[in-house]
Amino acid sequence: MKKIEGGICAVEGVKAAGACEDNYGVAVIHYPDSSAAAVFTKNKVQAAPIIITRESVKDGKLSVIVANSGNANCFTGKEGIEHAKLMASQVAEGVDVPLDHVAVASTGIIGRQLPLPIISKLITDALRRLENSSGASRNAAEAIMTTDTYPKEFAVETTLKNGKTICIGGITKGSGMIAPNMGTMLSFITTDIEASPAELEEALKKSVEKTFNMVVVDGDESTNDIVILMSRPGKGNIDGNFQEALDYLCSQLARMMAHDGEGATKYMEVEVKGAQALDDARMAAKSIVKSPLVKTALFGADPNWGRIVAAVGYSGARMDENTISVRLEEGDRIVDIVDKGKIMGFEGTEELELAESIMEREEIKIIVDLALGNYEATAYGCDLSYDYVRINSEYST
Amino acid sequence: MKKIEGGICAVEGVKAAGACEDNYGVAVIHYPDSSAAAVFTKNKVQAAPIIITRESVKDGKLSVIVANSGNANCFTGKEGIEHAKLMASQVAEGVDVPLDHVAVASTGIIGRQLPLPIISKLITDALRRLENSSGASRNAAEAIMTTDTYPKEFAVETTLKNGKTICIGGITKGSGMIAPNMGTMLSFITTDIEASPAELEEALKKSVEKTFNMVVVDGDESTNDIVILMSRPGKGNIDGNFQEALDYLCSQLARMMAHDGEGATKYMEVEVKGAQALDDARMAAKSIVKSPLVKTALFGADPNWGRIVAAVGYSGARMDENTISVRLEEGDRIVDIVDKGKIMGFEGTEELELAESIMEREEIKIIVDLALGNYEATAYGCDLSYDYVRINSEYST
Repeated sequence: MKKIEGGICAVEGVKAAGACEDNYGVAVIHYPDSSAAAVFTKNKVQAAPIIITRESVKDGKLSVIVANSGNANCFTGKEGIEHAKLMASQVAEGVDVPLDHVAVASTGIIGRQLPLPIISKLITDALRRLENSSGASRNAAEAIMTTDTYPKEFAVETTLKNGKTICIGGITKGSGMIAPNMGTMLSFITTDIEASPAELEEALKKSVEKTFNMVVVDGDESTNDIVILMSRPGKGNIDGNFQEALDYLCSQLARMMAHDGEGATKYMEVEVKGAQALDDARMAAKSIVKSPLVKTALFGADPNWGRIVAAVGYSGARMDENTISVRLEEGDRIVDIVDKGKIMGFEGTEELELAESIMEREEIKIIVDLALGNYEATAYGCDLSYDYVRINSEYST
Repeated sequence: MKKIEGGICAVEGVKAAGACEDNYGVAVIHYPDSSAAAVFTKNKVQAAPIIITRESVKDGKLSVIVANSGNANCFTGKEGIEHAKLMASQVAEGVDVPLDHVAVASTGIIGRQLPLPIISKLITDALRRLENSSGASRNAAEAIMTTDTYPKEFAVETTLKNGKTICIGGITKGSGMIAPNMGTMLSFITTDIEASPAELEEALKKSVEKTFNMVVVDGDESTNDIVILMSRPGKGNIDGNFQEALDYLCSQLARMMAHDGEGATKYMEVEVKGAQALDDARMAAKSIVKSPLVKTALFGADPNWGRIVAAVGYSGARMDENTISVRLEEGDRIVDIVDKGKIMGFEGTEELELAESIMEREEIKIIVDLALGNYEATAYGCDLSYDYVRINSEYST
């Protein structure tokens, strides 16, 4: 498996484009007659595009995705559904595919009607520019950004056990309202493996659980989340190597989302191991990356392992304060601040000094060993900064 | 039922005192041979004083409470247990009661050993000043403050159905790490009703569920939470009037905690009605007050009902976006920004203008009607401000 360039356009036959104006953007991804699977938000309020796309992806066939930023087309009633359908039909006509081959996605402010004239104009622009190139993938990634500060894309190549070489490319956007169960994130992944919709769905669900669902920015869950995976039609090729590559691609996109969390100045990766069950590991890891007290401690470069241990304590995970260990890592520097329930990072110790200097860095890994079993999980998060507050208190004005 | 003065000392026979030095404080509450019940944190990591107090309150008898601020005596191992016991024995000797009549509580930083010389000196000071007076209750409330900006106390008087007049007084401290299931809060309540420990426990649990457990500041759950209720020994007097008065007292203390949440500039009360079950109402109300996006919108005076509806959507509560209504209230000004799924607060409308002016105020009530049933619940919260981030990124330095 190796990293390659080109994002979604690393895959032959995929054309992409992006167009932006003011606060709005439109991305189009054209991959004719592909097999497709999607994972949707679990929020009970579902945006109009989610309702439309759930229907069109049902038969596992897609040819094109249209996604807009700037307006979520959510809580917009029948008019919103109408707007999402109009987006779909404009694109279906533009690339000459059946209407039920179109997926629609939206991100942005909730509860305002979509400004159709602008979106429609941007769709026209994007359709005109569709092409298979690195630049096109980048443009599409840029077009779906909201408060993201940089476009997010990744691509990998791997060799299947049957000897075939395949590639997978993805673009994604964060960056607020990111939570377990995917707060406002759109992610579109293409691959040239030949697979059936059912095979894709199984693989995608496995990856999403381990990656996108382990990203927490603020704990809010969006109404608009969607991850779509498109491949060539076919069957019987997905194997462990493909799954590993897809996991890796999704984890890279998830990391970028956490890195670029709203207002984030620091990135944290939390690995919980030694758990009695996978659920315990996941609950504990998510609880730490979600804790406002851990997040503000990270912002303040305070190695406050007490808040880390407390977050494990209320996570619901089985834990024992006499066996828990907490390690901080940055590059090749490592410090055990809690060792089997014993605090090592007291004032005046070398451990605390090292812990403080690690916490000053921009990328920190927190490793918690519960020492109760053999399960582990990793969660991705960021600090809680003044800028998070500024961005979100000003968002809709 | 009426509000009275005096806090915990409104109750005859209760003596209180508080002593402070630097970042530390000690409160002592002396109510000899009282019936007692307590509710504790659900965090799996439990502070040393919680372990001690759980044991001493088991038989339902207490005579004195000693509580310190500045250090949580949590995650402090055997030494921590020793320290909590030393606090208890100093107080037991001081007021001449059996050791198992002493409750100990602590709040402050986690994972550092208690500075026993300072705490011991403050206990001596407090014991010397014990008295039944409004000033003494106030001093005790002050001594348990951490990042609280003002002491919190309340007292009510009510007449039981048997004609007796009783009173209830309480002090409490917030103000960070406040969450469902009581993030770092200490609350001590006294009453002159004659009751058994079992009766007190039943009444206290009912009140806590409706009040303290519905306060959210940041969603973190503390390792040190405790609520203690002490009464005269006896039996058979608790009735609906007492419960109503206790509910009211606890709701007033809960309101104060939310008002004084760390860094809070605004207070919100969220009432969810029309729910299919009590749990639905509670989940929805808590989800709204906990949402970082609702909290930052409140800080920014943005009537972002979209975030409110989204928070209900992911709360787990049963809801229907076509029946939900959202109302904002401030004093006698009311605006329905969502009416049975229809958005009223669009740009340029009177509704939005009024909603914006309501959101500018310091106390806002959000009323969500799910229109699916007859259950309701209220949650108490505050905004998420720059100061929350500042306070918590600087806390342990």
